[in-house]
Amino acid sequence: MTPQITELTRLISSFPGIGYKSANRIVFFLLKQNKDFINNLVETIKYLQDNISYCPFCGIPVEINIECQFCSNERDHSVMCVIEQPTDALSIENSGDFHGLYHVLMGSLSPLDGIGPEDIRLKELYERALKNSELKEVIIATNPSIEGNATAHYIADHLHKFSQIKITRIASGLAMGSQIEYADSRIIAQSLRSRTLL
Amino acid sequence: MTPQITELTRLISSFPGIGYKSANRIVFFLLKQNKDFINNLVETIKYLQDNISYCPFCGIPVEINIECQFCSNERDHSVMCVIEQPTDALSIENSGDFHGLYHVLMGSLSPLDGIGPEDIRLKELYERALKNSELKEVIIATNPSIEGNATAHYIADHLHKFSQIKITRIASGLAMGSQIEYADSRIIAQSLRSRTLL
Repeated sequence: MTPQITELTRLISSFPGIGYKSANRIVFFLLKQNKDFINNLVETIKYLQDNISYCPFCGIPVEINIECQFCSNERDHSVMCVIEQPTDALSIENSGDFHGLYHVLMGSLSPLDGIGPEDIRLKELYERALKNSELKEVIIATNPSIEGNATAHYIADHLHKFSQIKITRIASGLAMGSQIEYADSRIIAQSLRSRTLL
Repeated sequence: MTPQITELTRLISSFPGIGYKSANRIVFFLLKQNKDFINNLVETIKYLQDNISYCPFCGIPVEINIECQFCSNERDHSVMCVIEQPTDALSIENSGDFHGLYHVLMGSLSPLDGIGPEDIRLKELYERALKNSELKEVIIATNPSIEGNATAHYIADHLHKFSQIKITRIASGLAMGSQIEYADSRIIAQSLRSRTLL
């Protein structure tokens, strides 16, 4: 194909979850679109590049000069959910079960990748958690992975030292609707260890 | 999220194969990129919008004022492969088994969707096939679907009437490496009907 088509395919195949073949399909889809669609797409991308920053408190993207809706007074300031990425907030919002504050770490502790406590938003978390007198519970919703679990314990250890705030961890176990027969043995082990009283 | 983030998510979720969740991940990926990446992306999309047209012969996208490499003299002009979409040419090129000309129909006959013979590049195909004295074979590589098969027969009937060119259809049957046990019954029926002598 032409060099510019190859270049756009390369750029799009660097998007998360997009391989070379999907990128190709997307490029040909874009070639077929009219000027309005392309202008809207290009302008929106440029606008976001210039006008989005991260809320200094929760770390979720906000438009410059617009107050973060996730830190507003309409949210429940007595509970804070610690997450790895801003997208995790969307998933949790969609569950409809949480109306408190968020705190995005922008990653998780991963010594093998050289990501230590200074590389994620831990200092900001401690500051928010210890200064906010309304706060009663910190829910740690990092991913149920080795790194996410280690990060959760690291945070809990630190906060326990300096405050009486209740620290909880989201439950992990068998997914709703899954079948034990087909479940991964580690997931079964996890769900046995985390069993609850009926 | 902010209105512009929502808008970009909506635009990206209209890409082929991208749902709302994947679009969300891509938007957050884009928010994290530096200015160089975003400028390169935006400029390449705009460049293609302004500088790509379709080769009047084969129908594959080309840069304006640059000769179509798929119609160049380096290709074998004695065989022509008829395909539904430009991306099909890439898949066939990747097989490494074809070095002839292409002809993109830009769709297939689909009366239920109101797509008739005038809506796809059939007139251009007949013109190329009947005027090109070098041409010895037309391989019809429309998809092995109801529409693709009907289109293949429609083209073959027409060309047989007006020329002696050999018309062939790509084989369809069980995929290499697949297992009969798990194959779709229609695929098995197809591979039985299209059996070849050993």
